[in-house]
Amino acid sequence: MIVQAVKWVGGVDGFLELVDQRRLPGKFVKLQCRSVKQLYRAINALAIRGAPAIGVAAAYGLVLAMQNLAARDSLKRGLMVLDHSCRYLASSRPTAVNLFWALERVRQKARQFVATHIRAKFPTINKLRKVVLTEANAIYREDVDMCRRIGRNGQRFIRQPDGGLIKNGLGILTHCNAGALATAGQGTALSVLFEAHKKRKKFKVYVDETRPMLQGARLTAWELKRAGIDVVVICDNMAGWLMKQGRINAVITGADRIAANGDVANKIGTYSLSILARKHGIPFYVAAPSSTFDLSIKTGAEIPIEQRPAKEVICPWRTKIQIVPAGVDVYNPAFDVTEAQDITAIITERGVIENPDVDSISEHFKPRTKNSKLKTRNCGAKP
Amino acid sequence: MIVQAVKWVGGVDGFLELVDQRRLPGKFVKLQCRSVKQLYRAINALAIRGAPAIGVAAAYGLVLAMQNLAARDSLKRGLMVLDHSCRYLASSRPTAVNLFWALERVRQKARQFVATHIRAKFPTINKLRKVVLTEANAIYREDVDMCRRIGRNGQRFIRQPDGGLIKNGLGILTHCNAGALATAGQGTALSVLFEAHKKRKKFKVYVDETRPMLQGARLTAWELKRAGIDVVVICDNMAGWLMKQGRINAVITGADRIAANGDVANKIGTYSLSILARKHGIPFYVAAPSSTFDLSIKTGAEIPIEQRPAKEVICPWRTKIQIVPAGVDVYNPAFDVTEAQDITAIITERGVIENPDVDSISEHFKPRTKNSKLKTRNCGAKP
Repeated sequence: MIVQAVKWVGGVDGFLELVDQRRLPGKFVKLQCRSVKQLYRAINALAIRGAPAIGVAAAYGLVLAMQNLAARDSLKRGLMVLDHSCRYLASSRPTAVNLFWALERVRQKARQFVATHIRAKFPTINKLRKVVLTEANAIYREDVDMCRRIGRNGQRFIRQPDGGLIKNGLGILTHCNAGALATAGQGTALSVLFEAHKKRKKFKVYVDETRPMLQGARLTAWELKRAGIDVVVICDNMAGWLMKQGRINAVITGADRIAANGDVANKIGTYSLSILARKHGIPFYVAAPSSTFDLSIKTGAEIPIEQRPAKEVICPWRTKIQIVPAGVDVYNPAFDVTEAQDITAIITERGVIENPDVDSISEHFKPRTKNSKLKTRNCGAKP
Repeated sequence: MIVQAVKWVGGVDGFLELVDQRRLPGKFVKLQCRSVKQLYRAINALAIRGAPAIGVAAAYGLVLAMQNLAARDSLKRGLMVLDHSCRYLASSRPTAVNLFWALERVRQKARQFVATHIRAKFPTINKLRKVVLTEANAIYREDVDMCRRIGRNGQRFIRQPDGGLIKNGLGILTHCNAGALATAGQGTALSVLFEAHKKRKKFKVYVDETRPMLQGARLTAWELKRAGIDVVVICDNMAGWLMKQGRINAVITGADRIAANGDVANKIGTYSLSILARKHGIPFYVAAPSSTFDLSIKTGAEIPIEQRPAKEVICPWRTKIQIVPAGVDVYNPAFDVTEAQDITAIITERGVIENPDVDSISEHFKPRTKNSKLKTRNCGAKP
């Protein structure tokens, strides 16, 4: 059973319910966010994480922002509050682009509404609230749909290597968590595995524990186990040795931002995996929605990399034990950038970009006519 | 000030004093071993670790074994006890070869003594005890000397890359702990850094935390900090990204066993580092005493890799918190094998083996005449 990480409860006066991912796997606790500040803290402290999930949650955050307005407040004031909340929520985490994308989408929708109704007689704040909620709901529903499509588009890559022997059964490696907990739906990279599992493919998933916050050990292993998929947790430094032994047939990860040339920012450690995979001739897949692409930046060099507090490394998860001697420095970047040349294919809800580069990516995002839509390799996703 | 990890206190009736490395960096506690069983447990539970330190401790373990004998026991019985204790201690950890090497060396010395004195009138168990202690002391003293020589032979590699620019100051990466805590002396890989520091070279050491047992974060950072060397702890999955950013100019590690062709078994994660270093054109050095070589095996494929308990991964160091969901499998190899072709040089107490392979290694171990000794590149080590 797929877990629901983000859920809006009620109408314009409702609240956001999140699975508190800081407590998993030990405790399955839900967190209610009733203010923008609460949501900011939840995102910043990783109670909710994963690029698509953050985007959906932030969109609902703007509904929370509108709850502070009085019914008689002006629409202009409504837009000011929205603008301010967008800036505030956008500062919660700097790397994932879906956050900015979702905030901007809701903001634009609200602006359009106000622009077209500003001179009408009864465009009230209440109507603006409904517009914001409707757009957040749309982002949510599209995310659920996007996850399923990514899974269907990608499941064909969970297969025996062409002509190669499988020594130890089919082995898939993943890093961090790109599952249902990272999205509104059934995930991105894990959606591919869930769909392959539905097709009764037999495989084992090796999960990097993903220091410092252990999203792999805590969250991915938990999701895969619930789904009845074979899972083995390893420490991050064991992945290369598994590859060397022929136990890994494919690597699949999510993404936090993808540049126009196909460079992928994702959880720290992804870059090393891509180099190790290439060395061992193992295909390396990235599964992510279109909203992860930031076509305004040319290469991964332009992606800002979030530096997280040293404490995440110094004190193991949920403890105050110090594993680093007092006074010793710690370096703790949350992400790194994998080069497009080391990525076999990027799987989106629209299809598959093999050998990603500027051309194949701009081709992927070209508006499709009815005819061209039929021609794209659809891989089982319903149009 | 260099810490003393292994110390024999007293004469033949003495005991072994170890720094309990499970407690560092939080507590500096000494552990007294007064029986072979206690020592076995200390080695197996990683209270003492590091290939050379284990070798020295095991040699002293045979002195402890002899303490159970009565003065009137026969020499034959003495040898039986030694044989039995050798087998027992050798089973404490399977990968590091220095353990077997040290046990065998003491055992052979005892056998020689018995063979030459068996018919004499007064070769007592007490004399055999003294022979065993003398040999253990010799191994200890040679280890201290070996460490210093390795450091002096290797310090020249802590330098600016030839003709290259240094963007972020000289950066050295190390993995696990190959310091004073891993030897009787001042370490192997860290001895190189200590000697470079003595020569007032300026560099920063990035230390992989080294999951699951965190020897890098807990022990190496502690030793380097005490020595006044700049140190930054990172998670294992960050090393590749540091290399990509040009922050690493050399990698240096210890070794647990080296095959005749130069393949090196060392702490899990070393293999990945060697691949990443090669990809980024960074030299990769291994520092280890001659006793780490096992010329009886041709390649690293023959080195047995110790599998450690899943618990080490599941429960972070010194906690009972479970970071892996119940019922999920864990894979926990303690070591991996780095291929000789990815090693720039192996630094021993005898000199430096550049581009290690069967030929350069057998050359390194050829008995040296006085003349040839003068010819070998001595790199500052006193003959």
